[in-house]
Amino acid sequence: MVEKIYQTTSRDAVTGARTGLLTLPHGPVETPVFMPVGTAGTVKAMTAPDIHRIGFRLLLGNTYHLYLRPGVEVLSRFGGLHAFSRWNHNILTDSGGFQIFSLSHMRKITEDGVTFQSHIDGSRHALTPERVVDIQVTIGSDIQMALDVCTGPDIDHAAARAALETTSEWAIRAKRQWTTHRETYRGILFPIVQGNFYHDLRKESVERTVSLDLPGIAIGGLSVGEPFDKFVETLARTMEHIPAELPRYVMGIGTPEYILAAIEHGVDMFDCVFPTRAGRNGLLFTTKGRINLKNARWALDTGVPDPEIDSFGGERYSLGYLHHLFKSGEILGSMLASRHNLAFLHHLVFLSRNAIREGSFSSFKERFLEGYGSGTTRA
Amino acid sequence: MVEKIYQTTSRDAVTGARTGLLTLPHGPVETPVFMPVGTAGTVKAMTAPDIHRIGFRLLLGNTYHLYLRPGVEVLSRFGGLHAFSRWNHNILTDSGGFQIFSLSHMRKITEDGVTFQSHIDGSRHALTPERVVDIQVTIGSDIQMALDVCTGPDIDHAAARAALETTSEWAIRAKRQWTTHRETYRGILFPIVQGNFYHDLRKESVERTVSLDLPGIAIGGLSVGEPFDKFVETLARTMEHIPAELPRYVMGIGTPEYILAAIEHGVDMFDCVFPTRAGRNGLLFTTKGRINLKNARWALDTGVPDPEIDSFGGERYSLGYLHHLFKSGEILGSMLASRHNLAFLHHLVFLSRNAIREGSFSSFKERFLEGYGSGTTRA
Repeated sequence: MVEKIYQTTSRDAVTGARTGLLTLPHGPVETPVFMPVGTAGTVKAMTAPDIHRIGFRLLLGNTYHLYLRPGVEVLSRFGGLHAFSRWNHNILTDSGGFQIFSLSHMRKITEDGVTFQSHIDGSRHALTPERVVDIQVTIGSDIQMALDVCTGPDIDHAAARAALETTSEWAIRAKRQWTTHRETYRGILFPIVQGNFYHDLRKESVERTVSLDLPGIAIGGLSVGEPFDKFVETLARTMEHIPAELPRYVMGIGTPEYILAAIEHGVDMFDCVFPTRAGRNGLLFTTKGRINLKNARWALDTGVPDPEIDSFGGERYSLGYLHHLFKSGEILGSMLASRHNLAFLHHLVFLSRNAIREGSFSSFKERFLEGYGSGTTRA
Repeated sequence: MVEKIYQTTSRDAVTGARTGLLTLPHGPVETPVFMPVGTAGTVKAMTAPDIHRIGFRLLLGNTYHLYLRPGVEVLSRFGGLHAFSRWNHNILTDSGGFQIFSLSHMRKITEDGVTFQSHIDGSRHALTPERVVDIQVTIGSDIQMALDVCTGPDIDHAAARAALETTSEWAIRAKRQWTTHRETYRGILFPIVQGNFYHDLRKESVERTVSLDLPGIAIGGLSVGEPFDKFVETLARTMEHIPAELPRYVMGIGTPEYILAAIEHGVDMFDCVFPTRAGRNGLLFTTKGRINLKNARWALDTGVPDPEIDSFGGERYSLGYLHHLFKSGEILGSMLASRHNLAFLHHLVFLSRNAIREGSFSSFKERFLEGYGSGTTRA
């Protein structure tokens, strides 16, 4: 039995929501936790100190991107991604499975592993579950993922079963490889549940994944284009089978509706590029709905994006100024909007944790989404 | 006689270099001073607090750009550029003359003023010297410039004289208009010396400009494409005629060679977009020469850009990481390179002031340019 990294600290009375504490190589992290995504060794348009100042202590890096650029030689030379990117807190890396599925060309899966062409320069690459563990060891991930086979929302039961089989076999090999590193490497390995949207396969995948006796579990293959209700239903049916003592990570969710639904069903960790990507496009999340900064209605507005949120580390930038920055194509617009959206999500999970502790998560969720208007864009 | 805003605090024994103190509405500023350029209400890819942290207390804004976007209505609504952009220190604005000359279309100069078409949307605009003063009052400039007629390096004597005549007449009108604001507006007005590269015209322009009895003087029409030697010669011949008690501002210079030459001839203030523009293109200034961050030779380099400079406010980003950011097209690359280049120039003028105080400016300049290799790019 590998060591425990997670402890539940409180449970909501009505829903599956819970708070907890992750004990990781680069310090403790309270859950539920939203992880900003630093695809290529930086959260886009943000400095590491600013991310820290918002309150984040756990970032996500993409193994696929980091493997292609800067590459293993550079990461090895610098002693890993923490030192390279000057982020001295925790890093979780995904397995690359999702990006190989969604970004690369000519993906070909064999029993041994996967071959694909880089989306950057078309170069050919072959990865195995063992190699993906080694890459994440070089990155220095505090939490790493086993290579999985990600599938789209519309495949049949047989194809979903085949992907599940391969994912399960690869997780066994990943664990074996990870075990060989444990004397010198403190990072944790999570296997990934697949099974597409078939409940019997999800159940089987959870059981086979849990039987690996690893310290956490990731739920993959969700938020891949399916309707919200299907996401929630599949998540709920999957979560039923996962033991309470494991921390649960759902990949690729980053809007308030999805995050609150995930928390409600007992998810502890989530990540998404959407907050920063939306920010770069001038879209702000606020407790009163979304704001499209490019809209002329904000030009003369002296108010801040959201009085409930410290969007800019104590600075008071107005909607009028932000509008001007986007109209003028200024980089500072992307910087400030990214920062606001991350501060918004940090605030959302902070309030969620408090509501769970007070046993009032359901009413908090309802109230929050009422204010947010399920994402209505104010302009 | 309007009030004095400048006091010389030390003089170099050999050259014309000097240190001084500007007393401005938003606080004192030591000279020689380099001013970062915040074209459209932001120094590109930089936050106001970061600029402040480097040590800058005086920024430049471009009246032409601010007039077109966000425009006078917005600036007026926000109570000026300081409040709009959240910069609580000094702002100097140029007159717009240079941008109307270099950016706009269909520039037409009459005795009354200038008409032109916006480079953004082709809209037609008419500005007078009076209106340009009013715009800068709305901006809230701590130092504003009188509207001038800027000319290219290859015009004949008659055309240069005509531009000088108009500039001189407009300066008189600008002063008259500025005077009407003085009860409610604390900003200072500088007139601009023109005269192209003709020494007799430069001399005449200085004399007519000085006779306005304004608290400072700007030297325009330099660094417009002429060779370095011609720049230095014209600058030197112009400076000869300017009284020592006036602070002198030369527009549009931002490389170490130009800055050190200007300081040597008694210039107190300068600005340029080059450091931030170069930064966004991956070009770093260092005390050992220039670095092209896109070059593969930096990929494995764990060193910082310049050990003599606090490039990133105490953070230690390596050349290898910066190279990666530029290869990956990450905004953080532009943010960090802009910051380094501004820190470099701040450091350069800081060392210059110290050398002047110690009476060793010439040897400092020689040593600095030797290390810098006159801008040789290392790779």
